[in-house]
Amino acid sequence: MTATEQALDLDVPSGVPARTATPPPGDARLARLSLNQKTVDGWSLREAIDGCVAAGIPSIGAWREPVAEVGVTSAAGWLRDAGLRVSSVCRGGFFTTADPAEQRMRHDDNMRALDEAAELGAPCLVLVPGGLPAGDRDLVRARARAAAAIEALVPHALDVGVRLAIEPMHPIFAADRGVVSTLAQALDLAEPLPVEAVGVVVDTFHVWWEPGIEEQIARAGDRIASYQVCEWITPLPADTLLSRGMMGDGHIDFPHLTACVAAAGYRGDVEVEIFNAEVWAADGHAVLATSARRYVELVEPHL
Amino acid sequence: MTATEQALDLDVPSGVPARTATPPPGDARLARLSLNQKTVDGWSLREAIDGCVAAGIPSIGAWREPVAEVGVTSAAGWLRDAGLRVSSVCRGGFFTTADPAEQRMRHDDNMRALDEAAELGAPCLVLVPGGLPAGDRDLVRARARAAAAIEALVPHALDVGVRLAIEPMHPIFAADRGVVSTLAQALDLAEPLPVEAVGVVVDTFHVWWEPGIEEQIARAGDRIASYQVCEWITPLPADTLLSRGMMGDGHIDFPHLTACVAAAGYRGDVEVEIFNAEVWAADGHAVLATSARRYVELVEPHL
Repeated sequence: MTATEQALDLDVPSGVPARTATPPPGDARLARLSLNQKTVDGWSLREAIDGCVAAGIPSIGAWREPVAEVGVTSAAGWLRDAGLRVSSVCRGGFFTTADPAEQRMRHDDNMRALDEAAELGAPCLVLVPGGLPAGDRDLVRARARAAAAIEALVPHALDVGVRLAIEPMHPIFAADRGVVSTLAQALDLAEPLPVEAVGVVVDTFHVWWEPGIEEQIARAGDRIASYQVCEWITPLPADTLLSRGMMGDGHIDFPHLTACVAAAGYRGDVEVEIFNAEVWAADGHAVLATSARRYVELVEPHL
Repeated sequence: MTATEQALDLDVPSGVPARTATPPPGDARLARLSLNQKTVDGWSLREAIDGCVAAGIPSIGAWREPVAEVGVTSAAGWLRDAGLRVSSVCRGGFFTTADPAEQRMRHDDNMRALDEAAELGAPCLVLVPGGLPAGDRDLVRARARAAAAIEALVPHALDVGVRLAIEPMHPIFAADRGVVSTLAQALDLAEPLPVEAVGVVVDTFHVWWEPGIEEQIARAGDRIASYQVCEWITPLPADTLLSRGMMGDGHIDFPHLTACVAAAGYRGDVEVEIFNAEVWAADGHAVLATSARRYVELVEPHL
């Protein structure tokens, strides 16, 4: 056994021996698993593609920055050649500026992001709403600006066949990253807009705590454009942006939430998306192996 | 001017010169200001009482631990002699255990806390609901246990004339401290119980981000048992328990939320409650001076 093979049997980031066997490539339980690129932040798109193929992960959540490094057309070709689906493109959004020039700039950038998602064959573009502008304390208006900016993208989303996926973000990020704070609020935003054009992201890290989350997931139904799994751990790491854990290492009831998402009719890919300095510092192949193990243990049986 | 007097004119914890004059003792704008003891964590009850008197702050939010150090009867005497009101007692709660013996122990402790609050003349006992027990991922049941435990305290609360004040806590604490995460949820819990016995705490730090907070504060009406002010700052300090800021240093719209609380009919004291390592490290008198300045600037005009 080589050092690398050994490392694949240790869970990331805990370093303890895996409690289940790693599902091999071709294992039917992996059929809906997707690797969000941010989980292996140190990998290029090429490395992420090769890593997914080696691990038997059939789908990838692509980020615009690593895609841009090689160009969208090349990236689309690589993904096609590797036989990988693209479960989502991350990310559009950042809609909350009150400055008209910046609003136009953001709109144009989101239009380009929709084009890129279409070229990559992604079903949806994940929208991070954006936080309060500097010195601005009016959450109600910031939220209204986000709603208006999303609505303005609907025609192009319909044209290119990519859904806008509003991501409600944990209230820890309400000030500086995402003013849409609950699934209920995201659904209220989406409701007046066509379901083919506007959906929501259910990310366990962001919404696990929400009172009545079960009812909101049921209400979401066809609006669920993406299901992302990652863990709430305590004590929270010092950098809250990197405070997400590996499924099973924290407080979230993945079987329960996954069953809710399945009961709501979601049939798409399930992305593992973990922002965590320890995960990022680990060997990418070990991250994928742990992700696959935890997914088949805690998530896949409940889909 | 002595060094101490100089320090009183510098804001805590920023260290920048105060932008407004410190309201002197007797200033009518201080009539409803209360110092939650936790804001000056290094002070004994005696020091907190003397500090409030020196600063002209007429009310105090008392914590059980520093009160216990001198005994409840002595504490009540000191407070009476100093002419201070007690705006609340912190804290009861921690209701989420599934272990029957621990549930009885918690119930008995909360009964004693109600007695202490009554002896201190406090109108309410602040309830921190408690987090998920170790290894328990069932938020729905933990929340149900909290509801049952609160209901069990109602008869004694009515007997001693102290309101149980349910504190919804920021979702950052849902796992390890408070499973009641929104004002809406706290009001749902309170609704079946008599308004004289069960109220809610509106703490700006915990609920500022809540979608529809304006409607929920209006809905709360007579249920508002305590209004606490403290700030959401970014970047969040590494220790999230100590991540609260001085009003005006962050993202919360205090005039707006205060106007909502006033419109809901709240006529009680307003507690400044700041858990923050830098504030705790500062001179207590400077903390009180900054608190009073920010209060008369951002809160009091909107009451």
